[in-house]
Order: sequence, then C-alpha cells, then structure tokens
Amino acid sequence: MNSVQQMQRPTSAELDAADPLAGQREAFYAPSDGQLTAYLDGNSLGRPLKATSAKLASFVEDAWGSRLIRGWDEQWMDEPTAVGDRIGVVTLGAAAGQVTVGDSTSVMLYKLIRAAVDAQAGRDEIVVDRDNFPTDRFIIEGIAAEKGATIKWVASNPASGVRTTDLEGLLSERTAVVVLSHVAYRSGFLADAAAITAMVKEAGALMLWDLCHSVGSVPLELDAWGVDLAVGCTYKYLNGGPGSPAFAYVNASQQDRLQQPIWGWMGADNPFGMTESYAPARGIRSFITGTPPVLAMQPLKDMVELIASVGMEAVREKSIKLTEYAVALAEDILVPLGVEIVSPRNTAERGSHITVDHPLFGEVTRTLWERGVIPDFRPPHGLRIGLSPLSTSYAEVELGVTAIRDALTELL
Amino acid sequence: MNSVQQMQRPTSAELDAADPLAGQREAFYAPSDGQLTAYLDGNSLGRPLKATSAKLASFVEDAWGSRLIRGWDEQWMDEPTAVGDRIGVVTLGAAAGQVTVGDSTSVMLYKLIRAAVDAQAGRDEIVVDRDNFPTDRFIIEGIAAEKGATIKWVASNPASGVRTTDLEGLLSERTAVVVLSHVAYRSGFLADAAAITAMVKEAGALMLWDLCHSVGSVPLELDAWGVDLAVGCTYKYLNGGPGSPAFAYVNASQQDRLQQPIWGWMGADNPFGMTESYAPARGIRSFITGTPPVLAMQPLKDMVELIASVGMEAVREKSIKLTEYAVALAEDILVPLGVEIVSPRNTAERGSHITVDHPLFGEVTRTLWERGVIPDFRPPHGLRIGLSPLSTSYAEVELGVTAIRDALTELL
Repeated sequence: MNSVQQMQRPTSAELDAADPLAGQREAFYAPSDGQLTAYLDGNSLGRPLKATSAKLASFVEDAWGSRLIRGWDEQWMDEPTAVGDRIGVVTLGAAAGQVTVGDSTSVMLYKLIRAAVDAQAGRDEIVVDRDNFPTDRFIIEGIAAEKGATIKWVASNPASGVRTTDLEGLLSERTAVVVLSHVAYRSGFLADAAAITAMVKEAGALMLWDLCHSVGSVPLELDAWGVDLAVGCTYKYLNGGPGSPAFAYVNASQQDRLQQPIWGWMGADNPFGMTESYAPARGIRSFITGTPPVLAMQPLKDMVELIASVGMEAVREKSIKLTEYAVALAEDILVPLGVEIVSPRNTAERGSHITVDHPLFGEVTRTLWERGVIPDFRPPHGLRIGLSPLSTSYAEVELGVTAIRDALTELL
Repeated sequence: MNSVQQMQRPTSAELDAADPLAGQREAFYAPSDGQLTAYLDGNSLGRPLKATSAKLASFVEDAWGSRLIRGWDEQWMDEPTAVGDRIGVVTLGAAAGQVTVGDSTSVMLYKLIRAAVDAQAGRDEIVVDRDNFPTDRFIIEGIAAEKGATIKWVASNPASGVRTTDLEGLLSERTAVVVLSHVAYRSGFLADAAAITAMVKEAGALMLWDLCHSVGSVPLELDAWGVDLAVGCTYKYLNGGPGSPAFAYVNASQQDRLQQPIWGWMGADNPFGMTESYAPARGIRSFITGTPPVLAMQPLKDMVELIASVGMEAVREKSIKLTEYAVALAEDILVPLGVEIVSPRNTAERGSHITVDHPLFGEVTRTLWERGVIPDFRPPHGLRIGLSPLSTSYAEVELGVTAIRDALTELL
C-alpha cells in the first residue's frame, strides 16, 4: 500500500466518530487500572456487560435467596427454553421451540451427533473437516469408535474453510451426519451454510452446524436454510462469562425423530413425577439432561437483549468494517515484517476475526498480554485478532495491530 | 408422647441457645421482606451465603472483566480440579487428584457409568435400586438400552433404603457396576457405604455412590471405604446456587483403567495443542469434557471453606440433633393427625432430612409456600423437611412443623 492509499484510508478516530454503534461500547465493563489496553479476543471470551454484576447480585438475593426452591416452579424450569427462544429469535433465525440452553458445547455436540447417528439407520459415516475445532473432531472420534462408524474427512484449504466443492464425492447414502463450523475457529472463514445445508440434505444426511464463532456476530437463518441441528457457545459473542452454558438447536421437524442418549430427569416428560421409567419430554425439552444451570445463564440474557435492540444486520455491518480495517492495517504494517494473513480477503467469506501467522507469534502473544493488548494464540503460530462488534473500537484495533508490529519488531 | 416427656424436651429456644454452630447462620443471606419464615428445603436448594453476591461481582470485574482470556492460563484451567480437591479433602475423605467439578450430575452419572460398563468386559449387569432418584435410574435405563446391558433392580424398603442384605443374590460375576444413593432422596436413609462397597468389590464389580443428599451434611470417607466412583451435586448442602455444577470422584486406582465416552477438548492431554486426534489427559482431568463452568463454580467455594472451618463432624452432630428434634415434633403434633413418618428413627441410619407422608400434603405444601414456610413435595404424598446444619435453627424447625400442622388441620 502506497502513501496515497494510506492517506485515503480514514483514521481510526474518524471511523469511531462515524460509527453508529460506538455508543454501545459504554455498556461493557472496562477495568480502570490499566490492565486492558486493547481487547482483541472477544471471539474467545466476550467482555462482561456493566450490568452483569448487578444482574447476578439481584439473582442471588431476589431470586435464589428469596424465592428459593419456589423459583423452580415460578420461572427456572422454563429458563432453558425461554432463554433458548430469545437466542433463537434474536440471533439464529429460529422460531420458538427449537433451542435449549445447558451443558457445555462438547456435551451438546455429543448428544446431538449421537442422536443423529442413532436415527440414521443404515448410514454409518460422519463427515467433518480436518480443520474443525478440536472438540468437534474429538467428540466425533469417540462416537465413531463406540458406534463403529467411519469418519470421512473433508480436506479443505486451512487458510479458508469448507466449500461445497470440498464435499463433492464425500456425501452418499452412507452419510449419517455432516458436522461443520459456520465460522472457522482459526481462519475466520464464513461457510456458505445455505448451499452446504441444501447439498447435505439432498444426500439424505443431517446437517449440524457449530455456531460457536458466528452466533452474535454473523446473522443466521437456521429455519430458512433448513438446518437440522446446531450447537453454539455463549461465552464468545454472547458474553455469558467463562464456561457459560451452550445452546442446542433442533429443527422442529427432527425433534420427534431424534432421541439423545443421556436420559436425565430434566429431559423427561414429567421431571417431578418420580416415574418408574424414562419417557422423553415432547419437543425441544427432550434434549435437556440434568438440572439446568440457571445462575450461569443470567449474564448472557442481557447481551442477547442488547443485540436485539441493535439488530444483527447492524452488528454484521460493524463486524465487516472492523475486520476490513484490521486486514488493511495488517497488510500495511505486519505483512512487510513477514507476517502472513491466513484469513479470507473477501468480506462475504469472513466472520468477525482474522488470523495472522508468523513463527514468532507465540512469544509475541506473551509480550502483548503483559502490555494489556490481548489477542490469542493458536498453534502452530497463528495470532487471532477477534473483533466483537459491540465492544471493539477502531482505535483499539489500531492500537492492537500497532502493538503486534512493535512486539514483533523487538524480536526480529 | 405424654405431657411429662414434652416438658422434659428442651424448647427450640434452649436448643438454639446451646447450639455451638448457631453463629454460622449469620453467614447466610436472609430476605428482609417476610418472604421467608422457615426454610426446610436446603436438601433441594441451599441458601446463598451473604458473601455470594460480592464474590460474583468480584469475579465479574476483577477476574473475567480485567484478566479476560488471560484468566484461563492464570487460574481457570485448574479450577475444576482445584475446587474438586477442596470438596474432596473437606467433605469426601478424598485425597487430592480424584475429584473434578463440571457438567450436571446427570451427565456425570452418564460418563462414569458408561466408563464403568465399558471397562468391565464380560460383565453386562447394572445394579440399582427402584427407589433411587429418577435421574440415576433413567441414565441407567438409557445406558442399558444402548449397551445391551441388563438392569438388576434392588427391591428395598422404600421407607428406609438399601442394606447389604438387599444385595444378596444380586451380585455376581456378571455385575459391572452398582449405583446407589448414599442418602436416599425420599426417606433420608443413610446407607452403610463401607459395608456395601466392600461387598460390591468382593464381587468384582465397581461401586458408584450418588452423594447428592449426603455431601456437606454427612461425613464421607471415600478413600478409606475403597469407593471406585462417586458423583454429587453442589446446589444442596454446598450452596452453589440453582443448577450449579456437579462433581465426580474417580478413585486414583481406576483412573487409568476407565475411559469416559464424551471426548471433549478439555479432557484431552493437550487442550490447546489443537492436535489431530484425541489423547486423554492423565488422571482425573480425563473425566472433564467441555469448557469448565468457571463462573458457576464460584459460589460453592465459600461454602466449602465454611464447612472446612467448622469441620464435618460438627456439621453432622448438628444435623443429627436437628433431625431428632424434627422427628420428635412430628411424632408429637403431626402423627396424631394421621401423618406417617417415613424416615429411619435410628439416627445412625438417617441423613439430614426426613419425609412425612399424608394424602393431603400436595395441597399443604402449596399453602405453606404462600406463607413463607418452605419444605418440598415428592409424589405420591411425601413432604420433605430438609435441615441444613449450618443455616437452620431449631426455632425454624418448630415454626415449620407447627405450620405443617396448622395447614393440614385447616384441610381436615
């Protein structure tokens, strides 16, 4: 990029001044003691809202401490599906009655993939890509081992992600279920979920999308795309806090057909009936297992409503501008140092983070963390720059990328 | 009971005055607006500590909000086993390295029972009692269905619980695992865990204890008893809040032999290595699956330390006195109304709650809840009176049992 182009690019101050969502940043808690300079890892752990402490205190005292066990009858029994419905309507393009909150993403993956494999009689293959997030691959490895199923590995370009062309020849009458990430955890590649889902369903397989890196940053249309199953986490762009519960989407058309394998009392038709045998609940509740993590669900509720007030289209618009700005800066000041941008350049194929590669980025990340500049590191040498649309400023991106340049320069 | 005996019994005021643990009640949050008169359901949901709101606020702002993703490296990765070790040492009689916190009790049951069945080659029977808590029975039903195992049902006395004599003839070289509750959720019967564990192991089977209704109220000696596996919940006598995470104990001698079936990234040997295949972690960490519920683990930590400061023997001593007092009162003023006490009279065979039966107790419970007197109801017509040793006063027991009498009398 030459100096004329640099001059033509708006400054971070100009971008922040023109940002219609700039005011939303005030909603997030900011430490005052200099511990945080630039946070570029909301794709791994979203920042708390300022409202979260008070929300939890109110829950502890007004709900748990005062209503006590009555809270289950009054509200908490419905919390997994009530919160699920809000996540569904606001962020997933899912009508009510198809989403429940609970467990970890990994446990939810197990339950849904097992349910899919068990329901697809005569189909003994699970399709997943080699660059999918480890827990997706590991869970599938375990299920394949116990069910005698075969894993068909998608060999896609690791610097981008899975395209319909990568699936050609892999789908057949033996395919039980296809498990892909909507936004790749490493490259940030945004898959064409509509086209891939159509292709998978055409083959008679079930489609499961891992939405961990897209929910809350990329608009989703699960119902319109005809998606069968999805899981996602709530501690990234839904700001639920460390280890907050996962959610699962099961398309209404599949709820009667699929049975998940972990038959806990809260997935039973009459949890407090103390019945002799397990009879699954009707609908999405049958995908619940144990006592719902009600306290742990509280923080994310405010974030879902904040997203609702802004709208997913506005969120996506800012996300695109943030990653565009980060890519431009990286091209300008990191690429000349030998850094490689291993994320898509086409905004239509990119989620809300980018990854840059350099052999020294493990060491660079440690230095940055000490300086309050926080991206994360993914082996072998990827530094991820995550941009949460509602909490990240353009100034923060500039400061962060500049700090990466400085830390790398010191080591070169 | 005649009037002479009544006069000999100390009053609740005298008992509270003489209670060495009376001061501990100040540690618990108490609503000030009359919503709570007598809480008799700590065996279902423990009350919050006063410290819990501030604990969570501090976690949100100082840990999550300030350290952000650095928190995983600095502390949170070890939180499941660090908190597990404290639960183990303080309440379970378990040396470090054998307890982990996470998932729900139901999911933990699934993981451990599956691991047990998978490891016990040639043994295809699971032993469980018909009066065990529904989720235990349901999880086993599901596992038996998927593994082709047979359930051998223990027929014990529902007004007490499982004794060694009830297991005679049920254990054989076909028994893979025996799953029993240490304290029965309904009757409050306290099983002889040492004798039963020895008998089960003699038969070459694995012993799994469900500790939900004993942990934090009854001293446990899992290591000394030679227990193989245990699970428990933290929202009863460990006061972790609605839906707080479960814990699992896996005896060190079994950790290499057993493999749980849900292969999530956090149970892998190198979670952030982004490796090609799943290799389980060494030791207790291999029983972890997904991202640990770190925020949700915070409240219970203070309660474990409160118990540590008092000691489990003192907790048990008060628990016995509370249930003795409740039984005496019930005999005195409820039995004459046709109420049946369906809990053991022998304190050595009783946990920290009692159950009283009457056909009208469903309706009675609804009335009591409106009056701020809170026991719970378990079908067909059991009213449970749970007595949390550190938060319950004798005055509260008297008030509660008297309110039961009054509400029942109104309906008779």
